[in-house]
Amino acid sequence: MPQHKSKDDLYFLPLGGSGEIGMNLNLYQTQGKWLMVDCGISFADTYLPGIDLIMPNTNYIEQRKDKLVGLIITHAHEDHVGALPHLWRRFRCPVYATPFTMIIIRLKLSEAGLLDEVPLIEVPLEGSVAVGPFTVDFMSLTHSIPEPNAVRIRTDAGTVFHTGDWKLDPEPLLGEKTNEDKMRQVGDDGVLALVCDSTNVFNVEPSGSESKVRDNITQMLSSKKGKVFCATFSSNVARVDTLAHAAKHNGREVCLVGRSLKRNVAAAIEAGYLKDFPKVVGESDAGYLPNEKILYICTGCQGEARAALMRIVQGNSRDVTISRGDTVVFSSKIIPGNELHIGRLHNALVELGAEVITEKDSFVHVSGHPGQMELSQMYDWIRPEILVPVHGEIRHMVRQAEFGRDSGIKNTIVPENGTLIRLAPGPTKIVEYVDVGRFALDGQFLIPAEDDAIVTRRRILYNGALVVSLVIDETGEFLAAPEITNLGSPDAGIERFEDTIIEAVFAAADKLTKKQRADKNKLAEAVRVQARKAAKNYTFKETGPLTTVTVTQLKKD
Amino acid sequence: MPQHKSKDDLYFLPLGGSGEIGMNLNLYQTQGKWLMVDCGISFADTYLPGIDLIMPNTNYIEQRKDKLVGLIITHAHEDHVGALPHLWRRFRCPVYATPFTMIIIRLKLSEAGLLDEVPLIEVPLEGSVAVGPFTVDFMSLTHSIPEPNAVRIRTDAGTVFHTGDWKLDPEPLLGEKTNEDKMRQVGDDGVLALVCDSTNVFNVEPSGSESKVRDNITQMLSSKKGKVFCATFSSNVARVDTLAHAAKHNGREVCLVGRSLKRNVAAAIEAGYLKDFPKVVGESDAGYLPNEKILYICTGCQGEARAALMRIVQGNSRDVTISRGDTVVFSSKIIPGNELHIGRLHNALVELGAEVITEKDSFVHVSGHPGQMELSQMYDWIRPEILVPVHGEIRHMVRQAEFGRDSGIKNTIVPENGTLIRLAPGPTKIVEYVDVGRFALDGQFLIPAEDDAIVTRRRILYNGALVVSLVIDETGEFLAAPEITNLGSPDAGIERFEDTIIEAVFAAADKLTKKQRADKNKLAEAVRVQARKAAKNYTFKETGPLTTVTVTQLKKD
Repeated sequence: MPQHKSKDDLYFLPLGGSGEIGMNLNLYQTQGKWLMVDCGISFADTYLPGIDLIMPNTNYIEQRKDKLVGLIITHAHEDHVGALPHLWRRFRCPVYATPFTMIIIRLKLSEAGLLDEVPLIEVPLEGSVAVGPFTVDFMSLTHSIPEPNAVRIRTDAGTVFHTGDWKLDPEPLLGEKTNEDKMRQVGDDGVLALVCDSTNVFNVEPSGSESKVRDNITQMLSSKKGKVFCATFSSNVARVDTLAHAAKHNGREVCLVGRSLKRNVAAAIEAGYLKDFPKVVGESDAGYLPNEKILYICTGCQGEARAALMRIVQGNSRDVTISRGDTVVFSSKIIPGNELHIGRLHNALVELGAEVITEKDSFVHVSGHPGQMELSQMYDWIRPEILVPVHGEIRHMVRQAEFGRDSGIKNTIVPENGTLIRLAPGPTKIVEYVDVGRFALDGQFLIPAEDDAIVTRRRILYNGALVVSLVIDETGEFLAAPEITNLGSPDAGIERFEDTIIEAVFAAADKLTKKQRADKNKLAEAVRVQARKAAKNYTFKETGPLTTVTVTQLKKD
Repeated sequence: MPQHKSKDDLYFLPLGGSGEIGMNLNLYQTQGKWLMVDCGISFADTYLPGIDLIMPNTNYIEQRKDKLVGLIITHAHEDHVGALPHLWRRFRCPVYATPFTMIIIRLKLSEAGLLDEVPLIEVPLEGSVAVGPFTVDFMSLTHSIPEPNAVRIRTDAGTVFHTGDWKLDPEPLLGEKTNEDKMRQVGDDGVLALVCDSTNVFNVEPSGSESKVRDNITQMLSSKKGKVFCATFSSNVARVDTLAHAAKHNGREVCLVGRSLKRNVAAAIEAGYLKDFPKVVGESDAGYLPNEKILYICTGCQGEARAALMRIVQGNSRDVTISRGDTVVFSSKIIPGNELHIGRLHNALVELGAEVITEKDSFVHVSGHPGQMELSQMYDWIRPEILVPVHGEIRHMVRQAEFGRDSGIKNTIVPENGTLIRLAPGPTKIVEYVDVGRFALDGQFLIPAEDDAIVTRRRILYNGALVVSLVIDETGEFLAAPEITNLGSPDAGIERFEDTIIEAVFAAADKLTKKQRADKNKLAEAVRVQARKAAKNYTFKETGPLTTVTVTQLKKD
């Protein structure tokens, strides 16, 4: 890559979030300086066995960290801020965010022992900051968390409008509705590139309003006699407020169950939100209230094993129980990939005698991302020269690019993680593919997703492992019977698995010349191949187990 | 369990399919004799690493196989017939099915080398057979495969109407529509228990008709210029016929891609169906046709790695390719749990430039199971004394029981796999919980789902494994350095993982008395505990790797 220090050059480089929904990490470059926007995590799928959290591999920007002038966090969702405590030491730059987001950031950095190290710059709502050659204007949109910001990034080479996560909620209930005049003014001022959320591009209908959810849940509660449990994302403070209002309206007290929920509510109150939030009752007190007088708001809407709702269902909560006649409302979407976990939770609830209500049954959830009608509106306001869809899988981004062209934006480009896109001067194009990848959090270590540890676990997952330990003398003669460690092959045949392997070990050794046998590496390899083959034949699997042979060769005294 | 040889006793015992959608296996008992209905498989989820197929554990009926008079297969879907070749040797009884189903059964048994052993009794459509004390009347319903049968099981103790999988299709296109008069007559004749499909009980709308799907796809094709690919379940012969008709109407030739698809079409033709099916073109010939003249019907609608569509996408098909301007229609549902695989396939198709159309975009699929309106209709026809919902997760079965009670059926009972339910004489109740479970197909072995091999692989999946091999003399002194085999722990610390473990091994040995050291079992256990702890501390995981220590103790000459 050339130096790109000209005032006319402006580049966009996503390291995460383009080609996936999750772990957003975007970079802009002008005059040789870089600006990062968001630093998020994702949850790993089963392709990475034993891994919960993944995040973008930041090697590229680490090598240029002296040119990195700052990190903007648009809002406090995990897929935008969650990687900060894990990655910050690698690139060490100042972090900019609005007040509520900053409270969450401080909590995270404090837990990671980083609070004193990270330069934090709190930006007021609708505020502006100069960060190197970038002037960053924060602009409030609506979403499913307090303080979702778009950022207008002004440079000498042109202006980018980076939406972050957003929707248009005509009655957002928490925070202001989108300031249309201001958005139109942004368009009037001129925008080179609109970098825009693609999540709900397949939705033809508008996302709908939080106030409608509030009305519906309030009404629904009026017919319920038992305890009511509502599960939602702990960061969706507006929804928590909705649930609390619905409870109050129906004469129910509110009890919060789940650590992250309590933390987010406290953060929202600290930031000046939730002014009418009712006084909550503790879990132990809630148990003394009549069933029809209590509403529990819980974490665990995705069926997570350690979250509040699952703990309650499994009888692991001291004070809270679910029983016949109770109602459990899932006021949340089903994140793709979580269907089986959530289905199991639903079944467990039904077994306890509870009624389960989800967004399929009733209007108990509204999305925080823009459908086609909202995208159209945004295009009309911003009138960009270039549309860059992000925050989506390829199918979402390609669809938004099509939709943008159908809406009259002539210039669209679909990024992938690692595509260095020149936004100015034109023509818009990918000028380089930089190395990208993912880090996986494995215990205390952040390792590349293709690390041996993970690859090994994945291979064992299918075929098991086999370790053969040999003890030989200088001539290669066995000094003892081979030790066989079978890790995950079924021992279900007529002959025992171990005996089959031992036979193969002897057979492999017998085939070698005296000289080969005396060479421990040659012996090990010959035994490995035969032992693996014997295991494969025994189990009839497509490949044999991951096989390792250790050889201890003893010298004569 | 008592002997239940009275003429008045009738029992129902599901071993699979009650509490899950998949692997149906139901048993009825009267006069001391057992009748099995269906023998299906399921696909394993990630809880069983390395396992693809699971099926009911049949230990209970194996112990009573001399009392098992026959097995009825209602239809040829894998979740009703797929376990037959795997399990039949365990209980060896005659198998009854209608002609199309029997063709599929013969193919399966032939592949398993069992064709000559299994007594097969082909029953004509609408035919009846006496099987021990059970008289079984086959009655055609509609579903998503040829010859879906309900069975009326008549006994001296009462009549059961076992629906199998069904819907009401007013225009089924393949096979007859449901004979309402006959159904009503069944009700008039009297039914003690209706054992009924619960899959779609949450659907308020009727399932819809195959003919509507045909009209819609035919119309949709008229606007397509490129190649068109339609993925569906290979057993859904009516859908394959629908797709072929839509192709023909639009001047497109049909090419079948995928072995099971060709097999099912051949079986359907052999059984007398698909009389108007067009002559298909081979894959190599299809490539020479203009894009707008070909429609490929493919397996792989669930994103399966080895099925036709995925092979084509990955460029592993010699003759068939997908490129810009092509259209791929998923004429199928998304089976819960497959969302991520299917999403990846959609993304890969979009990357190739294809348009992806699913049931969310257009009416290209119709379910084969009854929604509430169809259930109501069935209740009206059959008018059972008892409703037994099956073929569902608990939430589906509980909901059908509620729905049945709301529809006026006073007596409902929700079974689980292993519940022995007395249907007659009343009152209806669970009289015993018999041991049940699942078999997993692991290579060539059918092992219990809780077998060591699977448990070990699951443990390794999260934490890796560690094998320490020691060579000691009679006094317990090390004759060589310990050999460390690290399987899946990240080696990413300041000190090397292996060195950390070796230190722990020596430290553990040093703590033992001379006598303890000389005892290889004591030494192994002490080393195991310390090595595991050291690995846990190194990685900071919640638990350490699965740790095994082998000790070779050499005697002095």
